[in-house]
Amino acid sequence: MNVKSVKYILGWILKIEAALMSLPLATALIYREREGFAFAAVMALCAACGFLLSGWRAKQPSFYAREGFVITALGWAVMSVFGCLPFVITGEIPRFIDALFETVSGFTTTGASIMPSVEEMSRCSMFWRCFTHWVGGMGVLVFLLAVLPMVGGSNMHLMKAESPGPSVGKLVPKVRQTAGLLYMLYIVMTIAQVILLLFGGMTLYQAVCTAFGTAGTGGFGFRNDSIASFSPYIQWIVTIFMILFGVNFNVYYFVLMRRFRDALCCEEMRWYLSIIAAAVLMICANIYDMSLTLEHNLRNAAFQVASIITTTGYATVDFDLWPTFSKLILVVLMFVGACAGSTGGGMKVSRIVMGVKSVGNYMRRCLHPRSVRRIKFEGKDVDDGTLHAICMYFIAVFMIFVSIVLVVSLDNMDLVSTFTAVAATFNNIGPGLGMVGPTCNFSGLSDLSKAALIFGMLAGRLEVFPMLMLFYPPLWREAAAVRRARRIDG
Amino acid sequence: MNVKSVKYILGWILKIEAALMSLPLATALIYREREGFAFAAVMALCAACGFLLSGWRAKQPSFYAREGFVITALGWAVMSVFGCLPFVITGEIPRFIDALFETVSGFTTTGASIMPSVEEMSRCSMFWRCFTHWVGGMGVLVFLLAVLPMVGGSNMHLMKAESPGPSVGKLVPKVRQTAGLLYMLYIVMTIAQVILLLFGGMTLYQAVCTAFGTAGTGGFGFRNDSIASFSPYIQWIVTIFMILFGVNFNVYYFVLMRRFRDALCCEEMRWYLSIIAAAVLMICANIYDMSLTLEHNLRNAAFQVASIITTTGYATVDFDLWPTFSKLILVVLMFVGACAGSTGGGMKVSRIVMGVKSVGNYMRRCLHPRSVRRIKFEGKDVDDGTLHAICMYFIAVFMIFVSIVLVVSLDNMDLVSTFTAVAATFNNIGPGLGMVGPTCNFSGLSDLSKAALIFGMLAGRLEVFPMLMLFYPPLWREAAAVRRARRIDG
Repeated sequence: MNVKSVKYILGWILKIEAALMSLPLATALIYREREGFAFAAVMALCAACGFLLSGWRAKQPSFYAREGFVITALGWAVMSVFGCLPFVITGEIPRFIDALFETVSGFTTTGASIMPSVEEMSRCSMFWRCFTHWVGGMGVLVFLLAVLPMVGGSNMHLMKAESPGPSVGKLVPKVRQTAGLLYMLYIVMTIAQVILLLFGGMTLYQAVCTAFGTAGTGGFGFRNDSIASFSPYIQWIVTIFMILFGVNFNVYYFVLMRRFRDALCCEEMRWYLSIIAAAVLMICANIYDMSLTLEHNLRNAAFQVASIITTTGYATVDFDLWPTFSKLILVVLMFVGACAGSTGGGMKVSRIVMGVKSVGNYMRRCLHPRSVRRIKFEGKDVDDGTLHAICMYFIAVFMIFVSIVLVVSLDNMDLVSTFTAVAATFNNIGPGLGMVGPTCNFSGLSDLSKAALIFGMLAGRLEVFPMLMLFYPPLWREAAAVRRARRIDG
Repeated sequence: MNVKSVKYILGWILKIEAALMSLPLATALIYREREGFAFAAVMALCAACGFLLSGWRAKQPSFYAREGFVITALGWAVMSVFGCLPFVITGEIPRFIDALFETVSGFTTTGASIMPSVEEMSRCSMFWRCFTHWVGGMGVLVFLLAVLPMVGGSNMHLMKAESPGPSVGKLVPKVRQTAGLLYMLYIVMTIAQVILLLFGGMTLYQAVCTAFGTAGTGGFGFRNDSIASFSPYIQWIVTIFMILFGVNFNVYYFVLMRRFRDALCCEEMRWYLSIIAAAVLMICANIYDMSLTLEHNLRNAAFQVASIITTTGYATVDFDLWPTFSKLILVVLMFVGACAGSTGGGMKVSRIVMGVKSVGNYMRRCLHPRSVRRIKFEGKDVDDGTLHAICMYFIAVFMIFVSIVLVVSLDNMDLVSTFTAVAATFNNIGPGLGMVGPTCNFSGLSDLSKAALIFGMLAGRLEVFPMLMLFYPPLWREAAAVRRARRIDG
């Protein structure tokens, strides 16, 4: 283990977090809120720790897959621990575990809240809470890659460990330029949404907070009823942008390059849009009796489907009151998730599609044992390594999911609440059903359950393996062995 | 597709079913019940259809993997359709779909019932209902292999398609002898249980019916409260035999050959017993307050855990009243299932263990990309083909499970009832939770849901792929193409 490189990157993450906190601080200054002092204090602390860890001068660290996993897992943990301090200091979320839950829920773009009433929060804290979604959506390491000079190939390990999806592609030959391009697209789309929301009559503050939650597919609202009390126009804008932010960003790169045919041919996007259309139609038919007009019916179905499949978690109705069929469609979509390479969570459409295709291919091989045909995805043959990685991901997800459900079940909530509380946090959505439904929150859970769900949110956002690695003994045994060997040499 | 061979085997399956019906007929004669006429009539029908399909003389059919899948799927379907006729004719289950559900539930050793009160049934029908468990437990094709002369290697395809578990081993070099040996072990163990139950004060009829349900890991009871009203001695005997019938039968073969060390070294059995012990201890601690004595506590926990993990489905308490943690352990065990090569259903302990091990191995490969270490199971390296088959099985199970859940959810039962109704039938257990809990039954479901669950029970018992193949278009396209080519040739 290259401890120096790990420390260096962690230091940079803290420096960036300090810089990011200038935004809530500015908000506090604008609205003249005394909660701004908490942000100033934590900013100073982050900066100090950051410089202690990584020094003043930019270095060129080197690392392999192992360091990539550790940096990603520890980086997100450290960012969350420091990020929750303002809430504790201002007293808006007095208990540390609650503040940590809220912040991890923010950075992982989950949007599950322990706040019974968010409307009492100060504007700067609320801004920070929504802003964490935006930072977490594209990933802080991707940001780091865009701004920090690093050694050639090794930084791909960071990109891989943080980005969602089974295979991370580079848009342009250099990782640094790819990361920059992704953030540029992200910023432009966020601004576009803000402008469209302003047309709908939102204040700038509301529009920015809503756009942060949509862009990061997060889902923290600033009203207790989420988006329900806003106009149909705003609900449609949010629906469309949720769906847009759930698309693989490669598509937008193609659009930017005017390669429209490539953009339209993206197989994952077509599956993703088909699944959304099918789910909306089925729910529309199923909740027909509960709607006032056809538009109302369609809007509610489309909003909730888009919110769940992109793992955002905004709500305009209490879907816990829907019939079982509609609720189950939402539960299934919770696991499907958005496209790889988007800001959404879940298992990702591409993994599901490749999984289903490989079962079909397996059946062919059972009938023709000598067949060597491979499955195709995005027009290319999928190699065995990718398929194996997908299968291992499914099994690992299943293992972690069951473990967390068993821990949370000790709280003795009903089965549906227990199951969906874990499904909604692990897949980074937010609201579940029953006692953690869209009109409720996570404040009633025990500290043990909250800790388990914090782990689950991080594991879900980082696609399981970085967090699993932290608990993988050989990693630490080998790291210790290497350090011992160095000490003997030196 | 070799249609002649398929017809030939289907004919033999019907002949055997006719022979099996002599037992309920004999029961009817002993107890002088007029329902016996129904069995006599269906016996004649089965025999007639059987001889029509396969003729009078034994042939040596030949087939490949494809025919193996088709024969298995169709064979079980045909057997169930004819097997349910006596219930319809006697009027004890007047509707065909209900009678088919009950019979499929019997043959697939599920034990889910649509009967509100089983105690009103005639003794011969009750006997047939329990006997279907015993026949389905070891498999009717395995029986066929033991009695019918077949061509060399090709019959292994039948054995593979019907036997549970990721890899089917031959105990002795010849498939026919292996099949015979398995049935011998099965009969001896069933008789041993009958004798021990007689010591506990059961009548011979009760003991035989209980042993059929235990041996096949089925779970149809002949009392409305299942096993709850029997003595603790009988409950313990049933517990122990449920666990014994969930063990890989290879172990008993080793015991028979006096290779005791080999028997004890069976890795799957050790995992299976460890999981049972862990589950019993956790549930004991969790339901401590609800029990009268320590023995009562331990007996209830052990009985329910054994009943669920072996996918039998007997019950001595209404575990729907247990705390969420205990209920969730049972739900997890529903999916784990018993050992491969036993009479139990579910995913099988060996698949779960190999799945978890392969995730560990995958993490090692992430850290050391050049590592070529494989996982070991039962002391041997597991090849990539087996691992791939396990992954495909997991994905296929997940796909079918979700599809059936969505169909059943149209009945608008609550989520827990919907989910566990499918889990309990697909994994061949029997009772679920909520509206399909141990004190309830499946009679309230719509015909569509019953049809979906019938498919699920068959898919679960036959390990998914034979049933999936029936709906795999290339199979039929190719079969049709071959037939057309032959017609042109001829």
